[in-house]
Amino acid sequence: MQSACANTQSSAANVVSSAEVEPLPLVQKKSFTTKNFQTFGGKSIETVTVGWESYGRLNANKDNVILITHYFTGNSHAAGKYQHSDSAAGYWDAIIGPGKAIDTNRFYVVSVDSLANLGAHDPNVITTGPASMNPKTGQPYGLDFPVVTIRDFVNVQKQLLTSLGISKLYAVVGPSMGSMQALDWAVAYPDWVERMISVIGSGEADAWTSAKLEHWSTPIKLDKNWQQGNYYSGLPPTDGLVASLMLITQDALYPDFFNQVGQSIDFSPSEVAPLEDIRQSPSIVNWLRARAEARAEAMDANHLLYLVRACQLYIAGHQGDLNNALKKVKAKTLFLPAATDLLLMPYNLQATHQMLLDNGKDSQLSILPGTLGHLEGVTGITNHAALIQSFLNN
Amino acid sequence: MQSACANTQSSAANVVSSAEVEPLPLVQKKSFTTKNFQTFGGKSIETVTVGWESYGRLNANKDNVILITHYFTGNSHAAGKYQHSDSAAGYWDAIIGPGKAIDTNRFYVVSVDSLANLGAHDPNVITTGPASMNPKTGQPYGLDFPVVTIRDFVNVQKQLLTSLGISKLYAVVGPSMGSMQALDWAVAYPDWVERMISVIGSGEADAWTSAKLEHWSTPIKLDKNWQQGNYYSGLPPTDGLVASLMLITQDALYPDFFNQVGQSIDFSPSEVAPLEDIRQSPSIVNWLRARAEARAEAMDANHLLYLVRACQLYIAGHQGDLNNALKKVKAKTLFLPAATDLLLMPYNLQATHQMLLDNGKDSQLSILPGTLGHLEGVTGITNHAALIQSFLNN
Repeated sequence: MQSACANTQSSAANVVSSAEVEPLPLVQKKSFTTKNFQTFGGKSIETVTVGWESYGRLNANKDNVILITHYFTGNSHAAGKYQHSDSAAGYWDAIIGPGKAIDTNRFYVVSVDSLANLGAHDPNVITTGPASMNPKTGQPYGLDFPVVTIRDFVNVQKQLLTSLGISKLYAVVGPSMGSMQALDWAVAYPDWVERMISVIGSGEADAWTSAKLEHWSTPIKLDKNWQQGNYYSGLPPTDGLVASLMLITQDALYPDFFNQVGQSIDFSPSEVAPLEDIRQSPSIVNWLRARAEARAEAMDANHLLYLVRACQLYIAGHQGDLNNALKKVKAKTLFLPAATDLLLMPYNLQATHQMLLDNGKDSQLSILPGTLGHLEGVTGITNHAALIQSFLNN
Repeated sequence: MQSACANTQSSAANVVSSAEVEPLPLVQKKSFTTKNFQTFGGKSIETVTVGWESYGRLNANKDNVILITHYFTGNSHAAGKYQHSDSAAGYWDAIIGPGKAIDTNRFYVVSVDSLANLGAHDPNVITTGPASMNPKTGQPYGLDFPVVTIRDFVNVQKQLLTSLGISKLYAVVGPSMGSMQALDWAVAYPDWVERMISVIGSGEADAWTSAKLEHWSTPIKLDKNWQQGNYYSGLPPTDGLVASLMLITQDALYPDFFNQVGQSIDFSPSEVAPLEDIRQSPSIVNWLRARAEARAEAMDANHLLYLVRACQLYIAGHQGDLNNALKKVKAKTLFLPAATDLLLMPYNLQATHQMLLDNGKDSQLSILPGTLGHLEGVTGITNHAALIQSFLNN
């Protein structure tokens, strides 16, 4: 993984432009390595290396840090561009930058690639996971890589921050799988976290969510090329990975978006090809498959299995009792479920928010309107910037 | 298929008990055969044989017929038991029987196995599909079986009814895929259909639904045993079929039900096995898999692909314009979407109902309350019997 990564360096912090209304300066991917990392499950990983990015400048007191934790198919590229010619900026660029909701003129914003990051073959991702070399064998770990958890992602982030001399977070903010990390941060390290924003998230993986995530793994395990995870010297299980991404894409959306796409490509249930031949697909399926095929190129199928498992094992605090865990929280918390989210429906964060209130904590919740489904918290975040900005200003 | 079916006969009608409050007499599966069946797609099937059941007695005028059309994983066993020792009665037994909402003391109720019925290896199902013998080759059709549509299911039913001397339906009523047949009946043969009840249904497969259904097919096609549908002389693609059924089961439910199951089996995201070994699964996944494995035994994987395709190609009237099609309807219509349905959300039937109203038709809609999701219209139908009874009495 690491060797495939361009534009990496080990400097601690960026220097921002002095002009307050400028866009972010070009972003550089940095890398952080820690040795003999102990997982929450009690296993040891000899070398962990992850990529990270920062936007804004760390102040002298080192108390202006906001940690951004990324979603399932995402990585540490939360804002800005690597090169002016990049077709898109980081996923939350609408709310991170000079003068934006997460104002890089004021805050030092840090974001870190997860362990077993899905984009293992993306030149701008640095991660350690089953596709990484196992130093014991000289071969990729495959399924010998230990199961990792949301807590492990948090602990890698904490080691990185500690290496920068940081011991306090003005806020930790993340969508979806990132929301799990954000809340686990607030429970596991309450003296670090002053504010926590959980977007399109949950307090724990309930039975519904655990089962729903499993369907993302299944196509990969069915692919004849998967070979129990030992595919690195042969053909990868691309068909399975593509099928998984097709399902993930739909799970993260809502009918309105799909039906708008359908109109734009002249989808109709009366199409001739799928009527004439069972091997043909409706045009909307072909559209979904083409998107997934393009995304799959930079991804590793085993990594997807490990991310699914990390989310299945998630309960904030990782101690088996959410209510007890939440008693430890010292941060002010803001929960932002999306009204049309079909993946992590608002009931998840409503329950967690209510537990915090019942424990006398300072918690707020606001349901994001909009018809983007789960992605209301990612691609739709522009519309909800004011909520985040207001919370961070208090 | 046919040879595997027990308890079949070709008699036209059952004789009901004279006692009005008795349960249904034991049900007998009957079979209907038609030759040189012409599909909507323009292909010919040399021999079509399907199973059917009836409850109640056909009156002399043959004007007391209610046709029940079944859902995706269902079959013609809508009510009653084959033997007193059967563990369960037909799926809508709560509303079909003497004195029930669909009163068999008054109505002659008919239900027919679909083409390519999923339960191809169920001894109580009779169907013709890709697992049937292709008379041209002496081998199962596999993917050489022509694509069939909701209209083809309707046309087989119409031929059966015509063979019984019936030319009018007091009502056609069905849930989910059955709702598609019910509405297509009302559009295609408006002079037949006096009343139509569409439960948890839709007027057409929109882009969202078409894509969502595709995920049910994908695991089967990924199974190495599938072999492009030519698995009948070897091992069937059971792993793929089980994965598909796991997804279908979850798509048809709502979080509340799953989380109640989770409680009953002591599910927790903190379980040890899935933390210690990536190859292990959370207990809720094991529960879901065990259910699917049991159901898969009587099912055929290719048949599932054909049912998915039939639903993807569905638009009431099958003429490419739903609004124009609905202008043909002469039936009074009742639409019953379920509030918590995540598979065919209420917007589907609300749109269809509104089009009928806009075309000056006599249409009613009532959103079923409850937390069973899509299955509110199947296993939850007991709670909604009064709506159906009231509509049929007018």
